[in-house]
Amino acid sequence: MRTGIATVCLSGTLKEKMQACAIAGFDGIEIFEQDLVTSPLTPEDVRKMAADLGLTLDLYQPFRDFDSVSEDLLTANLRRAEAKFKLMARLGMDTILVCSNVATASIDSDDLRVEQLGNLAALAGDHGVKVAYEALAWGKYVNDYEHAHKLVEAVDHPNLGTCLDSFHILSRSWDTAPIEAFNPEKIFFVQVADAPELSMDVLSWSRHYRVFPGEGQFELAKFMGHVVRAGYSGPVSLEIFNDVFRQSDVERTAVDAMRSLIWLEEQSAKWLDANAPAPSGAGITGAAGGTQAPGRRRYPMELATLPQVTEPAGYNFAEVRAADTKGLETVLGQLGFEFNGRHRTKDVQLWSLGHARVIINETAPADRDDSTGIATSAAAPAIAALGFDVDSPVIAAARAQQLKAPAVPRKSQANEEVFQGFAAPDSTDIFLCQGTSDGTAAWTREFGEGLEKPAAGPTAVIDHVNLAQPWQHFDEAVLFYTSALALEPQPFAEVPSPTGLVRSQVMATGDRAVRLVLNLAPLNQQRKTYQEHIAFAVDDLVATARDCKASGLEFLQIPANYYEDLDARFGLAPDFLATLQELNLLYDRDADGEFLHFYTATVGSVFFEMVERRGAYDGYGAPNAPVRHAVQYDYLQRR
Amino acid sequence: MRTGIATVCLSGTLKEKMQACAIAGFDGIEIFEQDLVTSPLTPEDVRKMAADLGLTLDLYQPFRDFDSVSEDLLTANLRRAEAKFKLMARLGMDTILVCSNVATASIDSDDLRVEQLGNLAALAGDHGVKVAYEALAWGKYVNDYEHAHKLVEAVDHPNLGTCLDSFHILSRSWDTAPIEAFNPEKIFFVQVADAPELSMDVLSWSRHYRVFPGEGQFELAKFMGHVVRAGYSGPVSLEIFNDVFRQSDVERTAVDAMRSLIWLEEQSAKWLDANAPAPSGAGITGAAGGTQAPGRRRYPMELATLPQVTEPAGYNFAEVRAADTKGLETVLGQLGFEFNGRHRTKDVQLWSLGHARVIINETAPADRDDSTGIATSAAAPAIAALGFDVDSPVIAAARAQQLKAPAVPRKSQANEEVFQGFAAPDSTDIFLCQGTSDGTAAWTREFGEGLEKPAAGPTAVIDHVNLAQPWQHFDEAVLFYTSALALEPQPFAEVPSPTGLVRSQVMATGDRAVRLVLNLAPLNQQRKTYQEHIAFAVDDLVATARDCKASGLEFLQIPANYYEDLDARFGLAPDFLATLQELNLLYDRDADGEFLHFYTATVGSVFFEMVERRGAYDGYGAPNAPVRHAVQYDYLQRR
Repeated sequence: MRTGIATVCLSGTLKEKMQACAIAGFDGIEIFEQDLVTSPLTPEDVRKMAADLGLTLDLYQPFRDFDSVSEDLLTANLRRAEAKFKLMARLGMDTILVCSNVATASIDSDDLRVEQLGNLAALAGDHGVKVAYEALAWGKYVNDYEHAHKLVEAVDHPNLGTCLDSFHILSRSWDTAPIEAFNPEKIFFVQVADAPELSMDVLSWSRHYRVFPGEGQFELAKFMGHVVRAGYSGPVSLEIFNDVFRQSDVERTAVDAMRSLIWLEEQSAKWLDANAPAPSGAGITGAAGGTQAPGRRRYPMELATLPQVTEPAGYNFAEVRAADTKGLETVLGQLGFEFNGRHRTKDVQLWSLGHARVIINETAPADRDDSTGIATSAAAPAIAALGFDVDSPVIAAARAQQLKAPAVPRKSQANEEVFQGFAAPDSTDIFLCQGTSDGTAAWTREFGEGLEKPAAGPTAVIDHVNLAQPWQHFDEAVLFYTSALALEPQPFAEVPSPTGLVRSQVMATGDRAVRLVLNLAPLNQQRKTYQEHIAFAVDDLVATARDCKASGLEFLQIPANYYEDLDARFGLAPDFLATLQELNLLYDRDADGEFLHFYTATVGSVFFEMVERRGAYDGYGAPNAPVRHAVQYDYLQRR
Repeated sequence: MRTGIATVCLSGTLKEKMQACAIAGFDGIEIFEQDLVTSPLTPEDVRKMAADLGLTLDLYQPFRDFDSVSEDLLTANLRRAEAKFKLMARLGMDTILVCSNVATASIDSDDLRVEQLGNLAALAGDHGVKVAYEALAWGKYVNDYEHAHKLVEAVDHPNLGTCLDSFHILSRSWDTAPIEAFNPEKIFFVQVADAPELSMDVLSWSRHYRVFPGEGQFELAKFMGHVVRAGYSGPVSLEIFNDVFRQSDVERTAVDAMRSLIWLEEQSAKWLDANAPAPSGAGITGAAGGTQAPGRRRYPMELATLPQVTEPAGYNFAEVRAADTKGLETVLGQLGFEFNGRHRTKDVQLWSLGHARVIINETAPADRDDSTGIATSAAAPAIAALGFDVDSPVIAAARAQQLKAPAVPRKSQANEEVFQGFAAPDSTDIFLCQGTSDGTAAWTREFGEGLEKPAAGPTAVIDHVNLAQPWQHFDEAVLFYTSALALEPQPFAEVPSPTGLVRSQVMATGDRAVRLVLNLAPLNQQRKTYQEHIAFAVDDLVATARDCKASGLEFLQIPANYYEDLDARFGLAPDFLATLQELNLLYDRDADGEFLHFYTATVGSVFFEMVERRGAYDGYGAPNAPVRHAVQYDYLQRR
């Protein structure tokens, strides 16, 4: 698949954008007119720079408001078009995007449109330019891709084709299956964009909220499947108008963009495999390739595949970094964790409770740089890494690498376990580990007495980890965990806190063995230390809480008002309610089951949670989150 | 008018919210349940604190999903209600908000609703509680305030009334006139909220985008007029769910909120004056008060008035502050400004070009604090103050003070002009000056030779000033300039820049003698030096540009691509186009006229613009803004 991206997706100058696209590995770019108009580079400079960078210049865009106009305006529009065609010759570009008219359209006649688009095609032919006509979702008369295609067919000129943009098609919920019947020679260009499901006017939605494939809710693999089956083999190019990407680091956004296309390519191939048409005599091309999956035929567009992984089987460990480890050691001890000793060569400690392993790294956390938006004070404990159990760490690492995840190999001595790892968008290190069915881990032999640490004690596991995300990289993180780690985004939630709404995106495996919560902190908190946490699941939370209390653990103190409200809402048995209140436990209930949990006080920017899931409860106690936030806020104010 | 505010409008803990409301001068508050549930304060503590702070506790809210349910659920709901009634007794509160059911409503029967609301009213009666039933805009069966009122009338119980919330009414575009016919004894509560015109689902709009009155587009004065005419005299209380206010400084937001109610009170009185019903025999009450405007009758709700001002007649001066003034002096000189001398007692200089006066203040700009989001480096020049010509500075200052604008009196010696001033939300100082018809200013005698400076030279005036606004205070600024300075918000615009979209809100007088542009910089720029500017209008921009060029002015260099595009768009005469390009002039044209302008390079965080308006052109060259931003970005990168 030939990959492309429109310069409007990125921040910076045209030069910076082109360089970032080349570094990220795109085949070509679309030049967004404004980026050229505002650039000190001449068209000839741009042409040379693109050649030097190995980028093709695939599409000049947009040319607006051409069709459906009066005779006078048509003359002016053709003059305007000719100026752009001449400019394209200097750029060495041959395809221009013409959008259906939204502003000056005054005559609703397909006959007239065929005539006017015919005029344009003839002029384009004189200049060796191909016009890709696109139905904007909010076009005045033409807003349906099939309508645009019908006009193109009627004009029947070799210099007029159509551009298919997934946003304009899927935002209107048009069926994408008819694409398959299109003559591939008339599909001049394909643009892909994803978007979250928002109920708002389509223009605002399009101009501000588009995201890269995999970061929204559109069925893009299916869209692409139809495009591939139609026989299209040109560039698949991103055109994403997004308020956040426009102001984020250009190189980083370009990599996020490239990752989305790599992922989309794989998903499209999977969709084609899963939706193979019933065998029939007349294929688009001849023999199927030998390496193709059964049922997938060879199409003019080749779709590359990635190393395949299944979802992780669980958390292998969580790692907290701290220059001063005393606070952490105290809390883990009070939570019932056993100290399993220090590493034989590194300055790290291992603590465990059942299957839950926490590594304390005794080196100061790196100050996260300003671009992440989340500053942590250097000495305070912070979550630094997560280990996941996967079938094959090598295959998973290869996949992550192909998805352009920055590698972070962990140094190791001879005879020590080598962890494959990469950096997540919030700069947490993600390590890929070999899971075992009995919950132990071979690398634990490198700690203390040199014996493998048994999964002893109470049946505890890491239930979920909650990471704060910088606002610029929230969408990127969703795609990252989806594509590289095979986690599935769950429905989005938001909870109020005293300093603003906290947006929360759960990423999880189907069996819920891994639950990762990505929190988008209020902007005002982004620059302060935002709190993250690790939650452990136990079988009997009340017993655990009693033990922790006996050990002197500092619980987050829950207000009495909370228990009164709980009683008003649920009508709990008085004894049970008294127990909850006595132990500062929080409670939730839904149709599936019950949830009991408590929080520790915060150490640095980290705190811990203990949870008990009863029945099939699948949530995180969201109704209790405002209480947690308020009490933590109060606690930090007083500290 | 009794003023109130719901605690959900503000950030912080319940205690912090209550204190901020008292400081801002509210009469009472609504307790949002979650704020109490998450608070360590007992209900008795809250009651005492409110009494100590002089706040009444006007409404406990919300109680959700009561009506339209099955028998089983009704029993549970009545139990839940009784728990809250008992809690309210401890708080010393007598009114609770019950919202129409959105979640558990299963039976669509007005008869059943009348029966169930009757049960609730009877229970409330036993506890001395008044239930204010409100139709949510997205209520499953009840989403129209007239429907809610009809149910209340049908139940006909002294403990059941209705709550009118302007958001739920105006977001659905319901006619507000029928409110006048309501029995005022059945209107238990009135909530006011404004909102921008957004085309999105009403629930998201309501939960995230409400703003304080005067900051959105709702016709709230009319809504209030109908409420007043109905004979309602209870609290008028703000209930604003807004993502930004939730994370802003609590005391500051409370003042912004109070300002909005003071302004709404005045606007409501004006609406009543302007829409006095035709005289008839039966008034609601008896004789009209002596101080009432003709045509306004006396209503149970008294509406206070403010000192009245008309819109300012123009800019009197703009002031730039700089520790190192050399760069500024050079640029002003090159722009043709005349140095009129230093002030006799202060470290300030006066420069003028025709009627346009610029003061250079030789003291370092105060570092704007972190809460504004916009940091300026201490020594770099920055716009510090604006002077406006008003009819009566004293009356205007009195009005601003009643609107809780923080006063910033300028120190002055004997025989010197005393300026009334106050601080705008972005901490720019706003001064109120006595305008003269010949464009001179008496205070200029304090500079140089002691002579009043004539409005000599080319006919130049300050055309507009462009100020960067911190993201937390953008809505606040709109209300501030609307209410205190009688500027009118114009339609909102946004332009792309290499670092993100810049949102732009023009505030102007009807005659355009004053144009003030509030720019919301991309978040990533908020923490860097964002550029602001002062624009001067001249009669002949080409001649001015030639003079400036001869003086050695450093123009912002406009790319050649821009002029090619200009030609493609407008087909300009070749000579004229060549002149534009030679002088780095920008050009725009619309149905009303033409606009020529150029920019200087940036000095500190300030740059200057020269404009010429031809015909009735009323814009700011918005199509050229991306070019300006891109070139400035490039310039700053290279510096």
